[in-house]
This record gives sequence, structure tokens and C-alpha cells, in this order.
Amino acid sequence: MIRAGIVGGTGYTGVELLRILVLHPEVDVSVVTSRSDAGQRVDAAYPSLRGLCDILFTEPDVNALAECDVVFFATPNGTAMLMAEQLLARNVKVIDLSADFRIKDDKEWSKWYGMDHACPDLIQEAVYGLPEVNREAIKNTSLLACPGCYPTAVQLGFLPLIENDLIDVSHLIADVKSGVSGAGRKAQVSALMSETGESFKAYAVNGHRHLPEITQGLEIAAKKSVGLTFVPHLTPMIRGIHATMYGQITGDIGQVQSLYEQKYQNEFFVDVLPQGQHPDTRNVRGSNNCQIAIHQPQGSDTLVILSVIDNLVKGAAGQAVQNMNIMTGLDEKLGLETVALYP
Amino acid sequence: MIRAGIVGGTGYTGVELLRILVLHPEVDVSVVTSRSDAGQRVDAAYPSLRGLCDILFTEPDVNALAECDVVFFATPNGTAMLMAEQLLARNVKVIDLSADFRIKDDKEWSKWYGMDHACPDLIQEAVYGLPEVNREAIKNTSLLACPGCYPTAVQLGFLPLIENDLIDVSHLIADVKSGVSGAGRKAQVSALMSETGESFKAYAVNGHRHLPEITQGLEIAAKKSVGLTFVPHLTPMIRGIHATMYGQITGDIGQVQSLYEQKYQNEFFVDVLPQGQHPDTRNVRGSNNCQIAIHQPQGSDTLVILSVIDNLVKGAAGQAVQNMNIMTGLDEKLGLETVALYP
Amino acid sequence: MIRAGIVGGTGYTGVELLRILVLHPEVDVSVVTSRSDAGQRVDAAYPSLRGLCDILFTEPDVNALAECDVVFFATPNGTAMLMAEQLLARNVKVIDLSADFRIKDDKEWSKWYGMDHACPDLIQEAVYGLPEVNREAIKNTSLLACPGCYPTAVQLGFLPLIENDLIDVSHLIADVKSGVSGAGRKAQVSALMSETGESFKAYAVNGHRHLPEITQGLEIAAKKSVGLTFVPHLTPMIRGIHATMYGQITGDIGQVQSLYEQKYQNEFFVDVLPQGQHPDTRNVRGSNNCQIAIHQPQGSDTLVILSVIDNLVKGAAGQAVQNMNIMTGLDEKLGLETVALYP
Amino acid sequence: MIRAGIVGGTGYTGVELLRILVLHPEVDVSVVTSRSDAGQRVDAAYPSLRGLCDILFTEPDVNALAECDVVFFATPNGTAMLMAEQLLARNVKVIDLSADFRIKDDKEWSKWYGMDHACPDLIQEAVYGLPEVNREAIKNTSLLACPGCYPTAVQLGFLPLIENDLIDVSHLIADVKSGVSGAGRKAQVSALMSETGESFKAYAVNGHRHLPEITQGLEIAAKKSVGLTFVPHLTPMIRGIHATMYGQITGDIGQVQSLYEQKYQNEFFVDVLPQGQHPDTRNVRGSNNCQIAIHQPQGSDTLVILSVIDNLVKGAAGQAVQNMNIMTGLDEKLGLETVALYP
Repeated sequence: MIRAGIVGGTGYTGVELLRILVLHPEVDVSVVTSRSDAGQRVDAAYPSLRGLCDILFTEPDVNALAECDVVFFATPNGTAMLMAEQLLARNVKVIDLSADFRIKDDKEWSKWYGMDHACPDLIQEAVYGLPEVNREAIKNTSLLACPGCYPTAVQLGFLPLIENDLIDVSHLIADVKSGVSGAGRKAQVSALMSETGESFKAYAVNGHRHLPEITQGLEIAAKKSVGLTFVPHLTPMIRGIHATMYGQITGDIGQVQSLYEQKYQNEFFVDVLPQGQHPDTRNVRGSNNCQIAIHQPQGSDTLVILSVIDNLVKGAAGQAVQNMNIMTGLDEKLGLETVALYP
Repeated sequence: MIRAGIVGGTGYTGVELLRILVLHPEVDVSVVTSRSDAGQRVDAAYPSLRGLCDILFTEPDVNALAECDVVFFATPNGTAMLMAEQLLARNVKVIDLSADFRIKDDKEWSKWYGMDHACPDLIQEAVYGLPEVNREAIKNTSLLACPGCYPTAVQLGFLPLIENDLIDVSHLIADVKSGVSGAGRKAQVSALMSETGESFKAYAVNGHRHLPEITQGLEIAAKKSVGLTFVPHLTPMIRGIHATMYGQITGDIGQVQSLYEQKYQNEFFVDVLPQGQHPDTRNVRGSNNCQIAIHQPQGSDTLVILSVIDNLVKGAAGQAVQNMNIMTGLDEKLGLETVALYP
Repeated sequence: MIRAGIVGGTGYTGVELLRILVLHPEVDVSVVTSRSDAGQRVDAAYPSLRGLCDILFTEPDVNALAECDVVFFATPNGTAMLMAEQLLARNVKVIDLSADFRIKDDKEWSKWYGMDHACPDLIQEAVYGLPEVNREAIKNTSLLACPGCYPTAVQLGFLPLIENDLIDVSHLIADVKSGVSGAGRKAQVSALMSETGESFKAYAVNGHRHLPEITQGLEIAAKKSVGLTFVPHLTPMIRGIHATMYGQITGDIGQVQSLYEQKYQNEFFVDVLPQGQHPDTRNVRGSNNCQIAIHQPQGSDTLVILSVIDNLVKGAAGQAVQNMNIMTGLDEKLGLETVALYP
Repeated sequence: MIRAGIVGGTGYTGVELLRILVLHPEVDVSVVTSRSDAGQRVDAAYPSLRGLCDILFTEPDVNALAECDVVFFATPNGTAMLMAEQLLARNVKVIDLSADFRIKDDKEWSKWYGMDHACPDLIQEAVYGLPEVNREAIKNTSLLACPGCYPTAVQLGFLPLIENDLIDVSHLIADVKSGVSGAGRKAQVSALMSETGESFKAYAVNGHRHLPEITQGLEIAAKKSVGLTFVPHLTPMIRGIHATMYGQITGDIGQVQSLYEQKYQNEFFVDVLPQGQHPDTRNVRGSNNCQIAIHQPQGSDTLVILSVIDNLVKGAAGQAVQNMNIMTGLDEKLGLETVALYP
């Protein structure tokens, strides 16, 4: 059994890790930290876990965490970078769900995240945990940077076109819609149901922190500079991301549908829908799946790619567990073969 | 492996059975019928099942169903009673999620359901599938009447008091709120999102079909006539039932909290919350759990019992699978140990 | 023109007052205070008011407010009682939407609101602003205590029975469901959309602050002690209250439907639905109406009364403006003849 | 007083016309037709109108409608074209909220709407009722084609750039999100709350009927052919459209913000937000306003235009009344000066 620790167990990615891990057949969750709730039973905070989790929240403590085989950071940005080095030194695998190790250029990171990086050297060691791109590197790393929710949906949608040089990468558009759980579990007026229910809006059009992360990923695939317009929106639902992506075809597009099907044919968690269909976020709600569809409306040279995930699963905790499975030599699907909750 | 058939696979209880059964380690779903969708792949209708279910909907056919070990009816009322006898005769276990075999008095049934019963004799053979009440009988039956969603929540909430004669059964009140999936997956204006979203209402105050079913269950426990006022409401969410029940204390109530805890201490799917808590439907969303809390506000002689379930799981498909496990000698929890989807 | 001031303009009752008053033909909103947003344009905080409100939030200041004819307090409890005396002394009419002047017994008030009352003498001067009960007193007061949202829905529903001594007042039950805007516009995890969306729960079963207010009102009507069990619930929508009330008939009930129709026949904002109907909160959304229906299910001696309001309108700002109209001699309906927003 | 008739009073645009017109100071609604509900009181179908509308639904009848000054068609496509000629011949002004007279090319219309046009000659007489473009023509017409909801939001957002030749019209993108009331009030599984709640999807990517309407409007402004990729989405809320539009700058963009402000400075119902803001559909919910913001993220040459309306008001019934006001010489704002319902 893998002993797992979770730092920051009271946010939505933390409780989502718990939802998955308490049923994972090869994992024993032995530490869950929370500064605010230390001493309280985990299932008192989350009654959905009653009967399945009988431990207490504890204060974050490196010695306790070092007893784990794997430690997940489900913390605000800037926390994992303070503890990762010590844990790695004690042979603990670190999986960071925050943004601390996602951006290779620490100056760029500082610009977007508004702080200096505590361990820029470690960034280079970290592997970006998109298994569909980096599976081999993930197998051999002890420091994993779990991708953001928007970046997961957008990269999985754009990569087959970019890797095959079939799209004008200078003018890519990603119009992405997220449920409100992406805003996290913290007291803020802007995420109240009275503010976000029954309403729809774009936000951060002039620059969202996930922009450099997406761009970095696309540029690695394109092997050149990429121009991306990324517009995130808030949609009145709890879970789910729907990315609608646009790009101009640059060559003979041929069978774009089969291009996607081939790219993802061995990927258990990426599902290319039959031609003409539209993915619906509910069909991945609570599951680790990404569903993708490709359209070329009216025969024009503008392609439309639709990509949906559950932001808390494939966009966070599920992908983290998928990475843990790869890092520890387990079957990649273990603990993640669930069916989306429809209706 | 148990070969399972589902008659009526295109409603919400049908697809919920599929969600549970495709992951059940001892079940192989071999037949799913649908008159409207016969010939279509099941996962084309329900993309959430892609990769987990590769069969086609077929026309309902007794011979094909008779190849199954267990057949679930997730059909409108009046269908199961037409096929049950033939299937039972061929040694198929029948689990009916509709109301055809719930009411022992077929004249009462006819009054509420507006049709004559096709096989009144079979009603007496049928076992009412509330495992917390009838587990032994369930083990030995081949014809199971799966309880309604409202009746499950209300009976589990009232039974400990009634069995112990601690409450005035002549004036019980059950004020119950349901998500809209209870209205089923059929084209109707009244269940449109524009009609049911952002609004709340009571309905059928003068008599809902679940009234005689609840009363029958409570009277068996009370061993006398029961007076119940049952008011169902529609609440703007998809899944979940919250029953708020009221009754006057008749004797020394003593430790009502421990009464409930003892009653349900060995029931895996019924969870009595610690004193003072309030159950929230989200904490059972997608799970087969019932969570119950008991309050005696301001020390008055009116007790308030709160009981929540997911109407499609413990209120329908989950309870049906729980019954199947009991009827076939499997571990009662098999395929049902999931965590509610929070948030 | 009536010069109106609003103290506490950044909560939901404050902005709802603005929504109504900026279109009121006899009112000029001249002061809107907010400690947090002082100096900011009101329509920058509330873009829905762009083009209709060009003033700035100011710090609360008695001298500025004293220039008004009427001052509304849309503040947390405990604020109005600190300023009311000074404003009354300067001939300003005070309409308090908080609870400061609702409870006549200041010790009872202190018990529920957790603070000493700053001006207990003023409580006795204040008129409880339920126009359907106190219209004459409202005409002549300068200090108005605007009723709470739950108390408005429950009192309007129970009063015709209680005033006519037709119901057992020792065991009244009010099972009431509220939209989340009732929780106010403040940063709190429990009111996040991810916490309250798609879920339903009871809360404060052991005692909610509106209990003594409702009981006080019912006891005045009953002219005796009243036993009320009041259970508030949170329902996943923004606006609306639905009260389901239960009571035992004590005498010959006769035509209870016509009793209600007569009681409210001259009340523009209280609408008794035809027999057999069920009110739906959407039909009063955004309007100052209360819709009521009465049922006697299955001919039993338990009556069921259904009463719906918009908690922010008839349950707060709309009723406040209705009171202002009465206090200032205007047509009671002025500024309030709107149609609910359906769908 | 203007006598108004509504053909098709039982859909959402019909009841929205009623919501606006029953309070319009210069309109008397004298006829409301409905084949399905003829003989029933209008306020029995719509209890939100109780006290404000005491007429009955009638069968559609040209003679009765000919007594009106203005007749609104809130009917499915293909109905208005059958009655318009007769009404025009009897000097009735016709305002069609369906698509019958929106597309000038009747062959194009037939291709998208799947039927022959009953009166192609009339199409040329009809004026497309976007007041911000066609105000003068609207004043003088008797046959008005009220724009679709998507076309209203998209055209108001793109027009200032296109009219000034500042954007590459060969590759415009409109990614538009609509609330579910746009699907209308008809019994259909796909619009059930259990299907559309808590989920997000694109639909009709390969061609939506509003595409030719939008393209026609943009081409008139551009005075050349336009290439538009239009992707509609369904978002889990009842009212509201949010259009996110993308285009490449072709010249010196200069002060795009002031370009928009100048274009709409005299338009009461189009509101250009201050630089850097994001419109939120809730801020126009229930109002006839369009709010627009313009962004140029990261200084790239891709402009992002955000445009929000209430699909039932500015996208349907409100714009129809605005057109009626213009056609009858009334103040354009009459009956439409309301404040959006926030929260």
C-alpha cells in the first residue's frame, strides 16, 4: 500500500483527492493537513466521507509527511515550493496541484504569480504531468507539476493539430468556460451563489495565469512561438470545463477526425467523439475523462475543437492520481475507472 | 457473473442502473431494452458510458430477458406487471423499480394508479425491498418491489420512533423536497429548466401516489392505523430528496439520538449524524447513503427528523442493486461503495 | 419629491431598495452610504443601475442623512439602533430593514441577537411594518420596523386562521424554504455556489432568530400563547421563500378558502390563489406579491397553507417601500406595480 | 391607447411581451391567441400576471386581430408569413418575432428553415428591426422583422469595427452562450432541467439558423462578403446571452474604446462599459439593455468584444416593443425603463 499525504485538505482539490483516494485499492491516506481545521475529524468537515475516512486533520509537519510515500500539495500557490525540497530529500514523491512548478521560466512565473520563486532550480527537475504528452518522463520523476484545469482542456484539444503543423499557431483562440468550483473554497463575495448563479461572464480577458502555462505547452509541441488569445469565462454550474478552440487550417487538413482518433487511441482518459457530435460537460462530471470533438463548420478554413473535462478530476485531483499511478508503477487507471454522474 | 437485464433503459433510473452495474464486479449487463432506441448503441444515448458499455438497446423480448439471472424493470407503472409472471416462471429474479408491486391492496393500487392490476396474486408474493426492514424476506424472494424515492426517505426517518411507540401516529407530517430528476426523462413542459430552475413549489398536496405506499409501511411498523400528511415539493436541483418530518412525542422520549443510532448501527447505508447536525443532500449525491438527524427544537414536544437520500440511488437504482446483492447472496455493499460527489 | 437615504447600500437589501427607488416616481435617492465603498460610484458596484443612478457611496453621516425625508437602514443588526434616535429628533422618518426594532421585549431581543439594545425605549415607539396587520399605525409612525422575510411569509399565511380561532395554536408548524440571497452579500464559504448549488438542507432547527418575531406576531393575533415549530431550509436558488404551514383544525372550518379571500380582498399585494392551486416562487420573483393557497389533504383535520414571497421584495425592500408609501401618504402601490420575472 | 394583439401567447416570447405590455402606459392588450389554451384565462396559465391581465386566450382569428393597431407574432417560424398580408391589408402594423421576414433572400431562408416562403414579395417590404441600425426605416414600416437573439448580441458587438473597416471580416468568430429559455417553452427532453442543469455544451456547430441572419447584417455594414464562424452554446441558466467575439485588427486601431462610446452615445439601450470591465448577463436580466466591453489582450492584434443581452428582452420581446414605440411615434423607451433583476 502506498502511504499518501495531502497538504491542504480543506479546499476543493483536497477533498476531491480524498474522494478518489479513500476508494483507491493501493493507497492508504495517512496524513491530511489543514492549518484551519487541525484536530478536527476529516469526515466532520466532509460528511460525504463518513464511514470511509476516520483520520484527523493535522498541522502541516515535514516529519509526519516524510513518513508518506507520496505527498500531494492541494495548496494555494507558493506553498509547495517551500516544502518540496525537504520531502524530496527524504525520498518522498511530491505531486503539486498548484502552479509552483509548472512554468519553466521562473521570471515569467514571478511575473504572473506575484512572488519570487523559492527554489528555481527545482523547477527544472519537475515534470509537467500531462500523461498524454509526458508519460515516460513522469515514470521517472519524483517531482510532478500537475497541470492547471484550463491548460489540460486546451492542450489536449490543440495538440494533435499543432504537432502535425496543420494550424496557424500565430492566431489561436481558446474560449473556455469553467464551473465555479474552479474559484476554490474560500470566502469571497464574487463566488457566492447569489453572484454567480443564473449569470455568465468572461473574466481576466487581459491576462489569466493559465495563459503562460498553455502557451509553454503549445510552444513545446509547435517548436516555435505561439500566439494565443485565451478568454476564460465563469458559467453557472459547479463542475466542468468546456473549451471551444479556433484555428486557421494551414495545409491539407485531410482526415482531421482520424488524426485525433489515432493520437488518442491508446489514451484511456481521452475520448474522441464520433464526427458531428458535441461533448457535454455532464458526461465527464466526476470522471477523469476528456471528451473531444472536431468540427469544420460550413467547409470554411476555420477549425472548431471542443474539449470538456471535469476541472476537479482530469483538471486537478484525478490527473494527480493518474500521475501517482504512473510514478509508482501502478496501472494508470487504478482508482479512476468511474462513470460520470449523469443526470 | 450475474447476467442482468434492464427493461426500460432510457429513463433516469435505467441509466442510473447502468452507471452502477457496468462497474459492479459480479454483474454482466447483457440486455438493455428500449422501444424508442432499439438498435442504437447504449453509449450513443449516454456518452458518459463510452468505453464501459458496448451493447445495443433491443426491443423488449421475454425470451431474451429469460436468459438473464436478474431483470430490472425501470419502466413506467403498468409494464412490469405484464411481464413478471413469465420471467418468474423461467426462474428469472425480477426487481421492479416501478410501483406495480408495492401496494398490497390491489384496489387501493388501482385507485391511485388509474388502471386494473394485471396480476393481483403476484402482489402478495412480492417483497417490499427496504432492506433495513425486510432483509430476511428479500433474501428469499424472486419478486422484489423496490420502494419509491419519497417512501424510502420518509420510512427510514420515521421507523425508529414508530416501532418504539414514541410518537403520535395519528398526526404525522412529512414535508419532502425532491430534485427534478424525480419527474423522469420524458418530454414535458413542467420539467423544463426554464420552468423548474430558480423556483420552488409544492405539488400534489391533495394526494400523491407515494402516500398509500408510505402509509402502508408505517402502519406495518405501528401495527395500527396511521394519519400522515405528506406534502411533496419540487426544488431546483437535479438529484436529492430531503424529508423534514414532524411528530408529537407520546411518552418519555429519553435518548432519541441513541435510539436511532442503535436501530441503524449495522446498516451500512443508513448513517445517523451526530446530535445537532443537519444533513445536506449533496453529501449523499451519487451514493446509496441515507443520512438522518433528529432535533427537538426549543425542548418542545414536537420532534423534527431530517432524512436525505439521492432519489436515483437509495431512492431507486442503488437500492435495487442493494436488493439484487441480497437476493443473489452477494455482499450487500458490492458495487455500491462510492463517495458522494461533493462539491 | 421625497428625499431618501439608504444606510448600508452594498448588501442585497440595499441594492434592492435602489432597484425599486430609482424608478419610484416620487422619490429621489440622495444619499447611499457604505463604509467599504465610500467614494465609489454606486453604478460601478452595481452595473445594473448604469444610466439610472449617478451618485457616489458616502460614509454614513448623521448630518447628511438628516437632510433626507426618509432613511432606510439596510444594515446588519445593531446599526440602526445607534442612529435612529438622532434622525428621529431631526424629523427624519426611519425605516429599519434589520431586526433592531422588531421584538418588543428587549431582553428577548438580546437573547437572540447577542447584544444589549442601545435604545430599548424606542422599541415601544416602533411600529411593526406588516401593512396587512398594522396599516393604521404605520400611517402615523416615524419609526418603522420592517418585518423579516420568513416572518412575512409565515404570518400572512397563518393569520386568517388564528384571528378566527380555527386552528390549534399550541402545535403550529412552519416548514420554510429560502433562496440563498437571504444569507446576504458577505464573504462566507457556506454561501458559495459550490456549497449551496444543487443541494438542499435545513439549518438552525434548534432556534432561528426569526422564531421570536413570528411567535410575537402570531400571539398578538391569537391573544394567547402560541407553540410554533419553525424549520428554515436553504434551497438552491437565489430569490424566493416558500412557506409550507401545518395546523390542526379546532372548529367547524367551513369555507376556509373564502375566509382567506375575504381577509385579503382589499390587499393589493396578497393574492389568494383559486382552490387546488400551488404557488410557485417564480411567480412572485422580483415583485412585492405574496401568493397563498390553502389545502386540506384527504379531508383530514390537518390544514396545509402554502405562502410564497420574494425574500428581497415583500420580504425586505419592497415591503419597506410599501411602508414608506403609507408613512408619507402616497399611494401604497407606487413604484411597486411590477410583474414577476417569469421565466 | 394602442390596441395590441399577440399571436402565440403561450411561449416565452409571448409571455414576455405580456410582462412588458401590461405595464406599458400607452398599450392595451386586447387579443392574445393560443390554439392550445383558447378559452382559458391568460393569468391562469401565467399566475405572475394575476391582477394585471383579465382576458382569455382566443383562437387566432384575422378579424379579431384586425381590430388591433399592432399585432405581434410570437409564433414558431412559418406562421406569421401566413397571416401578415391580410393584416397589413387592413392597416394593422405587424411585428414578427419569428424568423419569417428576417432573411432577404427567400431561397436562403428556405434552405435554413426547411419550407417554402408563403409571401416572398413581402420580405422585401419588411424592415429588419435593429433600431441602432435601422431606426429611420423602422419609423415608416408596417412590417417589422424583429431580430433573433444571437444576431442582436453579435451585430451590436461587431458593427462599430466593421462599419469603420478596422477588422478582418474574412475570419470573424462569434462564440456565443445562451440561457435555456432560448429553446422555447415546448415539451422536449433536451431542455429538461435534468439535461441542461449543471452542464455546458456547444450545439449546431456545423450550422445554426442564426448564421445567415448575422452574416446578412454584417455584410450590409461591411459592404462586402463576410466570413463568420458562429458557435452557439447552451449554458445552465434561464435568461441571458453572452457573445464573445474575436477578430484581427486590420488598421490603426487607435481608440477602439471611444469608437464604441461614440457609436452608441445616443443609444439608450446600448451601454459601453468602461475600459477593462467585463459585462455579466445578470446585469441586463429582465432589462432591454445590451452591455458591451472591448479588450485587446496582451497587446496582440486580436480584439475581443464582449456583448450581453437578455435573450427574451433585447433579444426578443423588449426589442419588439422598442420597435413598436418607434413605429407608432411613441418615446422609444416607453415601457422599457426597468432595472435588471440583480441578484
